[in-house]
Amino acid sequence: MTFTLTIEDGAARRGTLRLAHGDVETPTFMPVGTAATVKALTPDDLRTAHTQIVLANTYHLWLRPGKDLIVEAGGLHEFMQWHGPILTDSGGFQVFSLQDRRTLDDDGVTFASHIDGSTHRFTPENVIAFQEAIGVDIAMVLDVCVKLPATPAQIAESVRLTTLWAKRSADARTRAATAVFAIVQGGLDLAMRERSAREVVALDLPGYAIGGLSVGESREELYATARHTAALLPREKPRYLMGVGTVRDIITAVDGGIDMFDCVYPTRCGRNGRAMTRSGEFNIRNAASVRDFSPVDPQCDCSVCTTFTRAYLAHLFRANEMLGPRLLSYHNVYVLNALMRDARDAIERGMWTTFRDEILRGLTGVHKE
Amino acid sequence: MTFTLTIEDGAARRGTLRLAHGDVETPTFMPVGTAATVKALTPDDLRTAHTQIVLANTYHLWLRPGKDLIVEAGGLHEFMQWHGPILTDSGGFQVFSLQDRRTLDDDGVTFASHIDGSTHRFTPENVIAFQEAIGVDIAMVLDVCVKLPATPAQIAESVRLTTLWAKRSADARTRAATAVFAIVQGGLDLAMRERSAREVVALDLPGYAIGGLSVGESREELYATARHTAALLPREKPRYLMGVGTVRDIITAVDGGIDMFDCVYPTRCGRNGRAMTRSGEFNIRNAASVRDFSPVDPQCDCSVCTTFTRAYLAHLFRANEMLGPRLLSYHNVYVLNALMRDARDAIERGMWTTFRDEILRGLTGVHKE
Repeated sequence: MTFTLTIEDGAARRGTLRLAHGDVETPTFMPVGTAATVKALTPDDLRTAHTQIVLANTYHLWLRPGKDLIVEAGGLHEFMQWHGPILTDSGGFQVFSLQDRRTLDDDGVTFASHIDGSTHRFTPENVIAFQEAIGVDIAMVLDVCVKLPATPAQIAESVRLTTLWAKRSADARTRAATAVFAIVQGGLDLAMRERSAREVVALDLPGYAIGGLSVGESREELYATARHTAALLPREKPRYLMGVGTVRDIITAVDGGIDMFDCVYPTRCGRNGRAMTRSGEFNIRNAASVRDFSPVDPQCDCSVCTTFTRAYLAHLFRANEMLGPRLLSYHNVYVLNALMRDARDAIERGMWTTFRDEILRGLTGVHKE
Repeated sequence: MTFTLTIEDGAARRGTLRLAHGDVETPTFMPVGTAATVKALTPDDLRTAHTQIVLANTYHLWLRPGKDLIVEAGGLHEFMQWHGPILTDSGGFQVFSLQDRRTLDDDGVTFASHIDGSTHRFTPENVIAFQEAIGVDIAMVLDVCVKLPATPAQIAESVRLTTLWAKRSADARTRAATAVFAIVQGGLDLAMRERSAREVVALDLPGYAIGGLSVGESREELYATARHTAALLPREKPRYLMGVGTVRDIITAVDGGIDMFDCVYPTRCGRNGRAMTRSGEFNIRNAASVRDFSPVDPQCDCSVCTTFTRAYLAHLFRANEMLGPRLLSYHNVYVLNALMRDARDAIERGMWTTFRDEILRGLTGVHKE
């Protein structure tokens, strides 16, 4: 993996990640394909929606269909027939959300499957081995994520283990085509973020993520912590803010120097009838959409917006027709990919702050926050 | 509408229906788009799966989104963005399935909506007016369908009203671009089928359907009744067997002189994990598919079969991922469209009986019956 930082405009950055399965222009958004499928969409849909890289979840794939089957299929790319770059998370976030179903020790974490209750164990080493075996382009280290608010002791312990495990993950690497990224933890405590960043940056890994955010804190706390932490990371390496995927959050984080994002938000919203646009979000089930024969997003040139009306999508959602979630998931992913493309253009043209302000001012619809 | 019968091979027929929105080569299968959407598929999917004509349901569209909205959208084609031919049924089949929720009189049928319990009334005239208003290519007359087994009196009454209503439907026509087809009823009683056919054929409508079958009778009864009734219909007009959609049923009915079919079967099967192939059907959730890296149907050249494995589809269904139903619905529709294309070729080449026997002999998998 190589990362080329081409231009900076303030803290905002324009770069190119060269990965085993292709190039990724940054800043970029990664749609989430939890179980080796971005829900409702085909790989061809992802391509026509200008997706550059897909995220999949180690926790889910580990449990179903499992490593052996994916290896037998020829790896995750072959299995799901997405031939562009793939990043997998480490499963840490999912395991630590299990609460009563997992036990943590210095060596790893033991947990009960949410599917059948069977016992499994993640260690820094076996999680790297899993991601390498299924052949992903970017693997994440196993980290310890705490739910916010958390006590100083909980945060310190999560940072200690995250560093320890990042070292062990780095040592466990065996495959050049899989780049391993470390994760910075530390909650909202900037001193702990500094310690965590210093410790993982010392490992000289090819990329760094900011974890433990978008887990219950306020938007202001998210923005301040992400911006502060981004500045602690090496300038010449990609920076990935985990779990962020609204227009406002992404634009604000790009402004703070982040290069990569992932979130289930656009596809989850799509399934629930929530349309994302440059002007904000709205629910397509609302009465206002029923007789509205305009596109979901008049500023969007995706195949859904150039083909169907809000009235038709409102009908599909009200009639519980699967085509509704499918079409709106596609549109929402397209919107974020187009936003990232325009953000890259703006940075290249030295127009980032103008673009940023236009986007943030334009968000007049009903938002998540 | 014009229908050109080009070749006959035994009772099997090869023709072309010229409709307001395009030509339909017969014999043909019509996927069902109940609520102005063939479940999980886009109009573009329908086209690439070689669909020539789509069926939609008057009953469902009447209730939701309703005539006014579809008219405001510019008609059903514009609303759903399918620009090929559309046939709508009359709602008769759905209303008579409501059992306790409808009252029949000589003038029409009053029923309670399955959605909100509101009261609605279908008459021969308003059902034709509805179908003409939404601009379909083929409209069906309101008929009275009886559930089998039925008493002779029930069957006689259904034939009497079906003829009466067909006459009124013919008189209610106002739009040249919508061809109105009548329906033959009569249960399994061949004398009643003869009476019904004689009476509706006398109305000289552009096409005729065989209704009241595929409603609980045995396969042998279905085949015998459909074949007998088809022979009672005018040679130079299209013949449509309602509600039939398995490979075996279609091939047998084409052999009896039927030109058109519709059924939810391929898409319903697709959503439930049941794969249709030329060699029979199987459930993709079965253990045998889990590690099977061959295509769903090795004889199929659809984009699902040329891209994904049975193992991947088995995973999608086991993980309850929407992409599974979507992909398998597409494949199943493609399979029936390809079957019809090959049936047309066989008739053209004078090879119908060879083709028919090959298909029926090849159906060695687990079938519906």
